[in-house]
Amino acid sequence: MKGFVSLVGAGPGDPELLTLRAVNRLREADLVLYDALVDRAALQYAPHARWAYVGKRAGRHSLSQETIERVMIRRALQGEKIVRLKSGDPFVFGRGGEEALALAKAGVACEVVPGVSSAIAAPALSGIPVTHRGLSAAFVVVSGHAPEAYSEVLSALVPGSLTVVLLMGIATRAATASLLISKGWALDTPAAVLFAASRAESQSWRGTLATLPLAPASEADAPGVIVIGATVDVAAQLEALKEPACPEIGEANVVAAR
Amino acid sequence: MKGFVSLVGAGPGDPELLTLRAVNRLREADLVLYDALVDRAALQYAPHARWAYVGKRAGRHSLSQETIERVMIRRALQGEKIVRLKSGDPFVFGRGGEEALALAKAGVACEVVPGVSSAIAAPALSGIPVTHRGLSAAFVVVSGHAPEAYSEVLSALVPGSLTVVLLMGIATRAATASLLISKGWALDTPAAVLFAASRAESQSWRGTLATLPLAPASEADAPGVIVIGATVDVAAQLEALKEPACPEIGEANVVAAR
Repeated sequence: MKGFVSLVGAGPGDPELLTLRAVNRLREADLVLYDALVDRAALQYAPHARWAYVGKRAGRHSLSQETIERVMIRRALQGEKIVRLKSGDPFVFGRGGEEALALAKAGVACEVVPGVSSAIAAPALSGIPVTHRGLSAAFVVVSGHAPEAYSEVLSALVPGSLTVVLLMGIATRAATASLLISKGWALDTPAAVLFAASRAESQSWRGTLATLPLAPASEADAPGVIVIGATVDVAAQLEALKEPACPEIGEANVVAAR
Repeated sequence: MKGFVSLVGAGPGDPELLTLRAVNRLREADLVLYDALVDRAALQYAPHARWAYVGKRAGRHSLSQETIERVMIRRALQGEKIVRLKSGDPFVFGRGGEEALALAKAGVACEVVPGVSSAIAAPALSGIPVTHRGLSAAFVVVSGHAPEAYSEVLSALVPGSLTVVLLMGIATRAATASLLISKGWALDTPAAVLFAASRAESQSWRGTLATLPLAPASEADAPGVIVIGATVDVAAQLEALKEPACPEIGEANVVAAR
């Protein structure tokens, strides 16, 4: 029997946002290696597997990347079915490409099981579409953990021309706002900060580029997604339509909208 | 009993890439309205629902957007549970935001169930990560169906600074390549065209910006994803490592890698 590694996206957090294929791989797994932001409830689908936490929080790794890859290779060559369970999608800032290459170099068969990316789902679950007819026909996703890259990418954007999604950018939100404003983005460009999307403890903040530095930071290493652009206002419109005070909606409709 | 609309992402095509929540909503649905690129196999999860095709192909709508919204509103106000099943993610070029607003205005309760977006999954399933350490720390997603917007967005990008993902851009691939080359992107920037990702009939092509105009067009209205950037080469590296001719891998490993 040959071993096999599945690089599996776990989605933004709520296990109900796992794909059927992710669940099928978990059911067949001998070993599950899971990351910091993966909800442990997902492990209910792998009752027969050994599971190991290999995540990193606030820059501290419990296992080095090299060790994780070595463990996967050794176990797979021994014939085990391994699920490498990553938050969101394994190929969006997930080092999935690096792990796939390391496995291929070692002759270990490997597949990618795409997941629901927080870059899209965190805004969506707060009522913010990354694209919206008349507001934005494109979006860019950048990581706050790669400051040189993000400043090169963000500096070049035509102000207001698309939606900007920042992952791992909470700590640098003030610098991001300054950068965009210095490049000509309007001070009143809508902005949102979304924490723990899809989870019970989810929190969201909405403001503008000018007030983004004042957005809450939550815990030091809480996962957060920042969205900047006109589509953030769709969430405000949706909320206003559900308000009882909203004049154009009758009482009956308001109840139905809840 | 109150009606309810779920705007559900069906993922790139293979029903195994539906989320558990999507399946749960389908199971409870009275009515499923599904789009052109949704695989009918997904409907196995809604055996008790009436289901209606409301898709558009090659610019021809079977039902106008207004009619779709009117049907959802009427049925929901009659108490039905409706699933609006959209290809990929409902908030990525899916008019999900527009439908959510129309429903809210009519007093109809509505939720978004995020899905696996083809923008990320089509590349991933071909071995192409949209981000990769040392190659790209950002990606931009644009639609070929919004030519003014995409040319504004693409023109501004620093050549080679991030991965470019084009949805609905097959017909305009030559113009896209010309535009990027005229803005200073290297002729040998890796590029890929991916058709029907996750489906049995999936096809992929890899080349460069210079050869992108020669990429196959497939059928007139086939869904295709174009990826441009250095991360496309990760797929080539993965393939090379699986080749028996690859000198640095022994015979046993090659077999294991299959």
